[in-house]
Amino acid sequence: MTATNKQVIFKDYVSGFPKDSDFDFTTTTVETSVPEGSNSVLVKNLYLSCDPYMRIRMGKPDPSSAALAQALTPGQPINGYGVSRVIESAHPDYKKGDLLWGFVGWEEYSVITTMTHVHFKIEHTDVPLSYYTGLLGMPGMTAYVGFYEICSPKKGETVYVSAASGAVGQLVGQFAKMMGCYVVGSAGSKEKVDLLKTKFGFDDAFNYKEEPDLSAALKRCFPKGIDIYFENVGGKMLDAVLLNMNVKGRIAVCGMISQYNLENQDGVHNLSNIIYKRIRIQGFVVSDFYDKYSKFLEFVLPHIKEGKITYVEDVADGLEKGPEALVGLFHGKNVGKQVVVVAHE
Amino acid sequence: MTATNKQVIFKDYVSGFPKDSDFDFTTTTVETSVPEGSNSVLVKNLYLSCDPYMRIRMGKPDPSSAALAQALTPGQPINGYGVSRVIESAHPDYKKGDLLWGFVGWEEYSVITTMTHVHFKIEHTDVPLSYYTGLLGMPGMTAYVGFYEICSPKKGETVYVSAASGAVGQLVGQFAKMMGCYVVGSAGSKEKVDLLKTKFGFDDAFNYKEEPDLSAALKRCFPKGIDIYFENVGGKMLDAVLLNMNVKGRIAVCGMISQYNLENQDGVHNLSNIIYKRIRIQGFVVSDFYDKYSKFLEFVLPHIKEGKITYVEDVADGLEKGPEALVGLFHGKNVGKQVVVVAHE
Repeated sequence: MTATNKQVIFKDYVSGFPKDSDFDFTTTTVETSVPEGSNSVLVKNLYLSCDPYMRIRMGKPDPSSAALAQALTPGQPINGYGVSRVIESAHPDYKKGDLLWGFVGWEEYSVITTMTHVHFKIEHTDVPLSYYTGLLGMPGMTAYVGFYEICSPKKGETVYVSAASGAVGQLVGQFAKMMGCYVVGSAGSKEKVDLLKTKFGFDDAFNYKEEPDLSAALKRCFPKGIDIYFENVGGKMLDAVLLNMNVKGRIAVCGMISQYNLENQDGVHNLSNIIYKRIRIQGFVVSDFYDKYSKFLEFVLPHIKEGKITYVEDVADGLEKGPEALVGLFHGKNVGKQVVVVAHE
Repeated sequence: MTATNKQVIFKDYVSGFPKDSDFDFTTTTVETSVPEGSNSVLVKNLYLSCDPYMRIRMGKPDPSSAALAQALTPGQPINGYGVSRVIESAHPDYKKGDLLWGFVGWEEYSVITTMTHVHFKIEHTDVPLSYYTGLLGMPGMTAYVGFYEICSPKKGETVYVSAASGAVGQLVGQFAKMMGCYVVGSAGSKEKVDLLKTKFGFDDAFNYKEEPDLSAALKRCFPKGIDIYFENVGGKMLDAVLLNMNVKGRIAVCGMISQYNLENQDGVHNLSNIIYKRIRIQGFVVSDFYDKYSKFLEFVLPHIKEGKITYVEDVADGLEKGPEALVGLFHGKNVGKQVVVVAHE
C-alpha cells in the first residue's frame, strides 16, 4: 500500500538570504508499511519547526569547516525538527499511535530508518503538541541549557537577550526573571517589544531597528552594565554588547542570525574587552545536552501548568506555507516561535 | 637625608604606537628615610619589567570602559612591575635588605606607601633575581593560570601559542609540552622561531610575517585542528585560528598586542565558529589569581632547578634604555622577556 506524500524540496545551495523560490513542492508516494525487523518507523508529520540554524545547513558545505549540522541535499526534502505521530513501527520502542518529536522531513509522511539522539518519544500530551517544536522541544532545551549551564546566572544579575521574542529568547527572559535577574530584551518591531514587556515580563525592551547607536541603547537600559548576554544575533550587536559588559561577564553564544545570510560576515572590533573585563564567551549546541531532557521536562512542565511560563507561537497553516514561513524567519517576520502545521488531527 | 633619583616620565597620553619621545627623563631627590609607623617602604629598584599590557595604560582613559589597569599619569613616572631591594622600612612585614617584586615606579628609588596584592616578598634567591619580572613574576603566573586554569588542557591535545617566544608564550609552550600536548608557536623572526624549536621544545613553529595566509599556515601545522589557543595577539591571527579550532576548543585570551596600538581595531569575521565548534573564549587577568602564587612557586621552582624549564630574557642595561626597550616591545624587537636593569648590586 502507498499514500501520496507532499514534500518541500530544497532546490540548491543558497547564498545570501533564502527566498521562497529556493524551495519547490513535489508529490511522491510513500509505502504505508515498514519492513519487520528493520527498526524503521513511518510517521505522519503534524508540526514542523522553522529554526535559524537551518540557514547554516542551506549553504554549500565547506569541507574545511566543522559544520553545526549536515548541509541539506539539493533535490531532496528539507529536514528539521517536527512533531509526528507513529503510523507504523518496526522499532521496539515505538508503537502505532505514539507521538514523537525530532528530526523528520518537510513532508506529510516520513520514514525514520534510524532513531537517534535527536528523536524523543512524547510522554506528556496535556500541553499543546506544537510546543514540542518550541517550549518543550529543541528551542526550550536550548534556552534551558544555554541559560542555566552556560550563563552561570546569579540572582540580581543583569541579563540582556537579543532576538528576545523568538523561540529561544522569550524563554531565556522568563527563566532569568524566575531567577531574580534584571532582564532586557531587544527585537525588531513595536509589536515584539510590547510582547516582551507585557507578556513575557521583561523589565525593559527596545526595538534595535530604531536605535541609531546600539551601544547607547544598551547603556540606557543597563546603566550599571551587563552581567550576562544571551547572544542570538552576532555582528554589530555583539560589538555594542562588548562595550557594555561588566567585569567577569558571560556571553552564551546560541546563534548569530544576523550573520548567516551574509557573504562576508561583519567584523567585530571590540574583542579586547574580553581581556579588560575577563569575559567568558561560550558557544554551545543543544544536542550536546540532550541527556538533560527529562530533567528539563521535570522543571518546566509544572511551570507551564501553573501558568508561570507562557509561550507565543506564530503558526503557518499548511505545508505549502512552509517555505514562506522559513524564509520569513530571516527577515524577522515571525512573532514568537515559527511553526508550520502540516496536519490537524 | 636625600638621594638623587633618576626617573622615566610619561609625557602625555599616546595614540598609535608609542615612541621614545613619549617619555622623558628627570632627576629629582628622594628622602632616604620613611616616617615611623607609616607602613611605607623605600626600595631601590633593580629590574623593571616591560609588558604589553602597559600600552593599554598609555591611552587616554575612557570613563565608559572598564580598564584593565589604571592609566598612567602624564608628567609622572611610568610604573609597572619590578624587582627591588628594601632600603628603609616602616612596614612590619619588610625589613632593610629584603627583596620584593611588584608595582614600583620607573626610577632608581621608589617609596611604596601601600603594600597591595601586587607586591610580593621574594623568599627564594637561589635563582636569577630578574626572573621575578618574568618566569617567577607576573608573566610566569600569567602562563601558569592561563594554561592550567583557563585552557582546561588534556594530555595529547594540540596547543597553539602566538607571540610564543615572549615572556608568557615561552612558558605556556613548555607547560604544554610537560603535559604531553602537541605545541606549535608563532613569532615574528627566524631567530625567535629557532628559539621556539631548539630551546623551548615546541614541536613546530612559524614566522607569521612570512605567511601570506595565516589560516593555511595553521592548517599545515595542525592538520587535525587546534584544541587550545593561547591568545596573545588578536586581530587577523584570531580570525585565522577560529577557522582552525576543533569542536569544544578553548581560547584563553591573555592579550591582543596587535590591537593595542590601533586607532580602529581589526574586525574579526569568523566568530560564528564559536557556535559551530562550541568554542569557549575566556579572557583573564593574572591579578585575579595571585592567591595561587605560592602554589605556583612550589610547582615551578623544582622544575627550574632540575633544568626542565628554561627562560630567555632580553636585557636592556640601564634606566636610560627603558623607553627604547618598552617601545621595542610593540615592534617585536625583544627576543624573550624584556627586562631593564636599573642597578647591578
